[in-house]
Amino acid sequence: MKKSVAIISFLSLLVNLYAQSQDSVIIRRIFDEALTSRAAYENLRYLCKNTKGRICGSPQAAEAVEFTSQVMLDMELDSVYLQELMVKRWVRGMNEEAYVISSLFGFHELTISGLGTSVGTGEKGIIGKVLEVQTFDDLEKLGTENIKGKLVFFNRPMDPTLINTFAAYGGAADQRTRGASEAARYGAIGMVIRSLTTALDDFPHTGVMYYEEGIPKIPAVSVSTIDAEQLSRLLSGDPDLHLHIISNCKNLDEVTSHNVVGELKGTVYPDQIITIGGHLDAWDTGEGAHDDGTGCIHAIEAVRLLKDLGIQPKRTIRAVMFMDEEIAQRGAKKYAELARENNEKHYAAIESDRGGLTPVGFGFTAAEERMEGFLQLKEYFKPYGITEFVRGGGGADIGPLREFGATLISFIPEMQRYFDYHHSPNDTFEQVNIRELQLGCAAIAALVYLIDKYDL
Amino acid sequence: MKKSVAIISFLSLLVNLYAQSQDSVIIRRIFDEALTSRAAYENLRYLCKNTKGRICGSPQAAEAVEFTSQVMLDMELDSVYLQELMVKRWVRGMNEEAYVISSLFGFHELTISGLGTSVGTGEKGIIGKVLEVQTFDDLEKLGTENIKGKLVFFNRPMDPTLINTFAAYGGAADQRTRGASEAARYGAIGMVIRSLTTALDDFPHTGVMYYEEGIPKIPAVSVSTIDAEQLSRLLSGDPDLHLHIISNCKNLDEVTSHNVVGELKGTVYPDQIITIGGHLDAWDTGEGAHDDGTGCIHAIEAVRLLKDLGIQPKRTIRAVMFMDEEIAQRGAKKYAELARENNEKHYAAIESDRGGLTPVGFGFTAAEERMEGFLQLKEYFKPYGITEFVRGGGGADIGPLREFGATLISFIPEMQRYFDYHHSPNDTFEQVNIRELQLGCAAIAALVYLIDKYDL
Repeated sequence: MKKSVAIISFLSLLVNLYAQSQDSVIIRRIFDEALTSRAAYENLRYLCKNTKGRICGSPQAAEAVEFTSQVMLDMELDSVYLQELMVKRWVRGMNEEAYVISSLFGFHELTISGLGTSVGTGEKGIIGKVLEVQTFDDLEKLGTENIKGKLVFFNRPMDPTLINTFAAYGGAADQRTRGASEAARYGAIGMVIRSLTTALDDFPHTGVMYYEEGIPKIPAVSVSTIDAEQLSRLLSGDPDLHLHIISNCKNLDEVTSHNVVGELKGTVYPDQIITIGGHLDAWDTGEGAHDDGTGCIHAIEAVRLLKDLGIQPKRTIRAVMFMDEEIAQRGAKKYAELARENNEKHYAAIESDRGGLTPVGFGFTAAEERMEGFLQLKEYFKPYGITEFVRGGGGADIGPLREFGATLISFIPEMQRYFDYHHSPNDTFEQVNIRELQLGCAAIAALVYLIDKYDL
Repeated sequence: MKKSVAIISFLSLLVNLYAQSQDSVIIRRIFDEALTSRAAYENLRYLCKNTKGRICGSPQAAEAVEFTSQVMLDMELDSVYLQELMVKRWVRGMNEEAYVISSLFGFHELTISGLGTSVGTGEKGIIGKVLEVQTFDDLEKLGTENIKGKLVFFNRPMDPTLINTFAAYGGAADQRTRGASEAARYGAIGMVIRSLTTALDDFPHTGVMYYEEGIPKIPAVSVSTIDAEQLSRLLSGDPDLHLHIISNCKNLDEVTSHNVVGELKGTVYPDQIITIGGHLDAWDTGEGAHDDGTGCIHAIEAVRLLKDLGIQPKRTIRAVMFMDEEIAQRGAKKYAELARENNEKHYAAIESDRGGLTPVGFGFTAAEERMEGFLQLKEYFKPYGITEFVRGGGGADIGPLREFGATLISFIPEMQRYFDYHHSPNDTFEQVNIRELQLGCAAIAALVYLIDKYDL
């Protein structure tokens, strides 16, 4: 009896080793195909160059919907369809300008960018004395008597000592998202933030901001980091310095838009869904290359790799281009809403929204008993330099799928230079490296293959 | 007795844990200082922008010697000095041109770059039928009857499926280094190679080539990968296609040049030396940013970090700017020769010559009994995402120090996009990210601190 158990154990070990080596061969094939195909890169080029300005609700966003649908139709996926939704429509307008007016230092132009959903200044712009602060606490200390009628300038940099640049971003983003209302609470007439980036350069970085109910809506713009430093220097020499800001952005009526979904039907459990998602909308000042053209292309190319290599997943694999991640996540909400209506089973979801630099790993949010299985997948990815398999995964677009019990997974690429691009005119196709993009696509395809095969 | 052993073990464990946590604090301080200082980045900017064209023996190389000496003098290191040596002097000359002449396809200009140490074509250039090959075996099969009087075009790409791009480079570099003599052996009158890069773009990549004794010296140039593909396409439609190449490069008399050395004197074992090295010479077509401006700056900044943080190493730490890595490694030879003459003790040497992208790890060549100690250092670097501590380290400049028993260490940064820059006009300051550079400097400083402190 004992002997036969030993033999069975031995045989099962052999079978396991064989399966593992087979998996390694398939994963190697996925990487080889990704690294020798220009499909992903050329699709990204088209998206960046031909749908630039694809902020949600824009004609360019509609073109991006059209283009990515067509790419997936051409791939002959089992099904390609749109999910209709309503999105906010904010337009930047022409002529964003800002001028320093100082009796001591004269006239200086600053490079600015209106923040998403901000109101404009009106044609003549706004002029006011500038008050530099770092935090909301500073505002409270200064109080209405010092702030009323002025322009508040938030100049708190992202912490450069944090190795995780997303954490540094998280620590500074409140200035952008809530700064206007916090300043307006004390009577400020406008708000300027130092761009959220680790770079010291001339690019202003935009991004969404929110107005708090019941507080006056004041214009909000960002200024490049070089100009933020300049403005701060000038202010320290001339506290009476004024700023003249002109912006013509405005909020229009909501319009119809779409998520785009492409499906590879599962062979065994077609009703169980693995979602791979990026977001199709992008800020209008750049090309939306790293944010989040690469995420969309990762999703499309991962599905193409599985299909073209004849890998037939047991579950249904969906590439999803979410609309409106940047402003109100309406696409994510619609996707979850339809999943609820259709009683969909969501097995796992991977989001790529951290750019298209070299992949370093994945983060997982899963039931504790399944976590070990995920973390051990690392072994398969070592030959590709992908070694960071960590707890904690998700994202704005796939977050709502947690209610369906789906494992949520973040794709984690290298992140040191990501915020050089994020939300700025510098987020262009030229900043994406073909190999880094290809490796990301392959990594995601390989992960989906393993999760599906081993029912993780 | 047993009890006291247990107590001693316990106490020594506590001491160890305390030492480790102190080390973590010091390493954190090194990274903080690196990430909040622009010194390294601004020094690199100067080197790139003001000594562009610093191929060995050039006036720009002399300026680079001057500049890096001055930077280290300004840092008030214990000693800064030059090591004189003789270097080859090759100059590119003006007007490198190549034209396709085809009765079927007409006239096309190609983007070329003469290979380092190549002879020129003479004023009128050379014209010949083009023969495309992949390997030296192809030449042997074709033989003199097919090759004589022609231009040989080596068009074997770097293997894109290799994750290690340096391995892909190694697998294709023979075309550049030996291709001319291999082709001339069969009577070829000139040689063209596909640029050694993983990118498909318009930049020609230069690099050193060697002539074999007793074989005619024929002109050797590289062509951009886009033009290599174009040339190959045209050739398949018109096998009678000719190429006209004009290059004016030439080899002049040898001249005097220098290595630059900056020292932080050891407090306990001043005669034991830890070398941190990069190379100061760079190909003339680019700015030598990633190859190897970043290596030089890594070395200088690592020493600055130790000094400015008041870390006093037991051993002497040297930042060394090696001259002439690209052509004949005369700087490396001179450094070893002087070490021999002066009976120097070389404890360890770190070379940074793989660019200035995000650090991922270090490679070590050391006595086997010391290897485990090195590999375990990984734990200190995990918080910084630096996790690849592997066997096998060295480099062209520190290689000769093995005879002194020195541990040889390679600095390993991310490598997917490195060959987009390598030896091309695309190797510019703008391609270096400040954070990636800063992290590299800190990683090297931290490694030196640990190796020195724990006598590894």
